[in-house]
Amino acid sequence: MFESMAKKPASWLTGKGPESEIVLSSRIRFARNIAEFKFPPSADTDTREKVIEFVRSAFSSMGLLKHGHFYNSNEISPLDQSFLVERHLVSPEFMKNGTGGGLYIDDSECLSIMVNEEDHIRLQSISSGLSMNECWECAYKVDQELARKLEYAYDDQFGYLTSCPTNVGTGLRASILIHLPGLVLTREIDNVISRISKVGLVVRGFYGEGTDVLGNLFQISNQTTLGRSEEEIIDSLSKVTQQIIEYELNSQETLMKDASDQIEDKIWRSYGILKHARVLASGEVMNLLSALRLGICLKLFDKVSLNQISELLIVTQPAHLQKYYGREMTSAERDMVRASLVRESLHGKQ
Amino acid sequence: MFESMAKKPASWLTGKGPESEIVLSSRIRFARNIAEFKFPPSADTDTREKVIEFVRSAFSSMGLLKHGHFYNSNEISPLDQSFLVERHLVSPEFMKNGTGGGLYIDDSECLSIMVNEEDHIRLQSISSGLSMNECWECAYKVDQELARKLEYAYDDQFGYLTSCPTNVGTGLRASILIHLPGLVLTREIDNVISRISKVGLVVRGFYGEGTDVLGNLFQISNQTTLGRSEEEIIDSLSKVTQQIIEYELNSQETLMKDASDQIEDKIWRSYGILKHARVLASGEVMNLLSALRLGICLKLFDKVSLNQISELLIVTQPAHLQKYYGREMTSAERDMVRASLVRESLHGKQ
Repeated sequence: MFESMAKKPASWLTGKGPESEIVLSSRIRFARNIAEFKFPPSADTDTREKVIEFVRSAFSSMGLLKHGHFYNSNEISPLDQSFLVERHLVSPEFMKNGTGGGLYIDDSECLSIMVNEEDHIRLQSISSGLSMNECWECAYKVDQELARKLEYAYDDQFGYLTSCPTNVGTGLRASILIHLPGLVLTREIDNVISRISKVGLVVRGFYGEGTDVLGNLFQISNQTTLGRSEEEIIDSLSKVTQQIIEYELNSQETLMKDASDQIEDKIWRSYGILKHARVLASGEVMNLLSALRLGICLKLFDKVSLNQISELLIVTQPAHLQKYYGREMTSAERDMVRASLVRESLHGKQ
Repeated sequence: MFESMAKKPASWLTGKGPESEIVLSSRIRFARNIAEFKFPPSADTDTREKVIEFVRSAFSSMGLLKHGHFYNSNEISPLDQSFLVERHLVSPEFMKNGTGGGLYIDDSECLSIMVNEEDHIRLQSISSGLSMNECWECAYKVDQELARKLEYAYDDQFGYLTSCPTNVGTGLRASILIHLPGLVLTREIDNVISRISKVGLVVRGFYGEGTDVLGNLFQISNQTTLGRSEEEIIDSLSKVTQQIIEYELNSQETLMKDASDQIEDKIWRSYGILKHARVLASGEVMNLLSALRLGICLKLFDKVSLNQISELLIVTQPAHLQKYYGREMTSAERDMVRASLVRESLHGKQ
C-alpha cells in the first residue's frame, strides 16, 4: 500500500509556501466526537467498529472527500503505519491500540482524517510554509460539511467535547513546523521556547507530542483550546511565528557577524559528508540537511534546492526507505541504503 | 629563503619508493664530532662559530656536496626554521639556542647536515619508502669523504664520541616514517609498540623525538648505537619494519572483515570533508589524509594519488602555508587558507 506516495515528497513539503526557507509547514487539526457514541478511550471493539462504519458512510457521501481513500486500520501494516507517521499524516499514537481505527487521506495529502484515535474524528489539513489561512479554509470546509452529516458532541457552554480536557472548546490545534538552526547555534532557543510558553503556545519535536527535536525542526502549537475563538488561536500562532522568524533571522545575522567562517565551513562539510558518506543514520541526515537549509537561508550555498532538501528529509526516513526499495531492512542496511539514496540525489550537482 | 622548495613536495615524499603505501620514508642519521673542538653543549659562542667556519670550509671542498647550499642559522628566520622542521630537514631542537648553528641542504633534499645541533655534525639522508640501503649508501659516502677532511672524535673502544651517551658508538640512528591506521583502528598499536621496544627500537611522533603522533604516522628508530655494527642496526630495523607491515596488513584485513562498511564510510567522508571544508586545522588534515591513504591501500579509493596525499601532508603544514602564500598568518587565517589549498588540489578529481 502507499507505493506511489513513497516515491514523491508530500505536497506540503514542496517548499513553495510563504516563508518556506524557515517554516516548513502549517497544520490545522480539529478534534471532534459523535454525540451518539462513547468516546474512543471508553468504547468497546463493537462500538469502535460501528463508529468507523458510520463515519466511512458519511465520508462517502461528501463532495469534499471525493478524491481520496479510506483505510481500515487492520489493512495497514506496521511498516505502512510508520510510513504514515513519517509523512505526518497520522499521529504516532494512531493505531497503538491495534485495530479499530480508520483513516481517510485525500489524494493531495493536504487532508487526512483519523477515526478512533483519541477522539472519534481527528481532521487535519497541512500546507507548505506559513499558510495558516489556507489550512484553515480547507479544514473548516470539511468540518462544516461533516457537521451536516453527523451530530457532533457539542456543549453550549464548553464547545466541542473531546476525550482529553486539553482539547475541549474549539477542539483546534494549529501548529507550524519551523527550522531554527540560528537560535540553536546561538543557544538562544531555550529563551525563545520559554517566552513562547508564556503566551499559551507549546513547543514539540519533529513528529509532534512526545517526540524529539531532530534537525533543528520544532513544532509549535497552541496549548489552550478553550476560551478563545478559532480566529484568535490562529492569529496568535501566526503572529508569534512571524516573531520567531525575526528572532531566527537575528540569530543568523549574529552568527554571520561572529562566526561566518565556521558557519560556512559547517554548511560545506555537511554537503561533503552527504555527498560522499557510505553509512548515514536517520538523525544525522536530518542534522546535515538542516545545515544545508541554513546555507540556503544565508545565501551561502546553492548546490541543492529547498525542494530537494525537503524531499530528502522525508524519503530518508526508515519506513520511507523500506517502502521505496520494496523490502524490510535492518537498521544497518537502511543506513547504507540511505547514504546511497542521498548520494544519488546529490550526484552531479556539485 | 627556500621559496622554490615551498612550492614542491620533498623528493623523499614522492611515494615512489618500495612499500610506499605504508612506509613514507627511510632515514639514516650520523652523529659526529670534531676532535679538536669542545662539543656544542659546552662550547662558547666563539668555539661554535669556529666550528661552523671549519665545517663549512671542509664542505666546500667536497665533491659530494657540490650541489647544495650552506646556511648560517642567523640567516634563517623563525618561519623558515619551522618550514625546515616540517620538511624533516632539521630537528625541532636545531637552533633552539638561537644563533651558532649551520645547515647544509643538497638540492635534492635527500641530504642535510646540521652543524652545532647537539653534536658538531648531524648528517642525515632520507629517501622514499622502505629504502634503508639507499639512505645508507648516500650517508656513508658523505661521511667517508668528510672523515678525510676532519678528524672525528673517535675512541677505539667506544667508537664515535657524542654529546649524549645514547649516540655513542656508531652514532647512527636509522628510522622509518610509517603509516599504521589499521593497527590504530583495531587498537593493536600499543601491543605492537611494546613488542618493538623489546627489540631495541623506539617509536616516536611525526617530527621525531618528543613530538606527537599525527595522522597515524609513526617514526620508528633504533634505540641503541653501541655494541652493534651499522649493518646490524639497519638490518634489524628493516626486518622489524617488514614485520610491522605484515601486522598492519593483517589489521587492515581484520577491519575489512569486521567493519568494511564503516571503513569505506570513514574514507569517503574524509574525502567529502577535505573536498568541501572551509576551515581545516593542521592535525585534522593529517587525520583525513590518513584515511585516504588507507583507502588507497585497501583499494577502496582512487580519487587521489599517493603522491598527492603526500604532497598535501607537507604543504598544508603551518610554515609551508605561509611560505607558499608569502606572508605570515594567524592560526585562524591558516585554517581557511589550508582548506582552500586542499579544495584546489582536489578540485575536478571527484
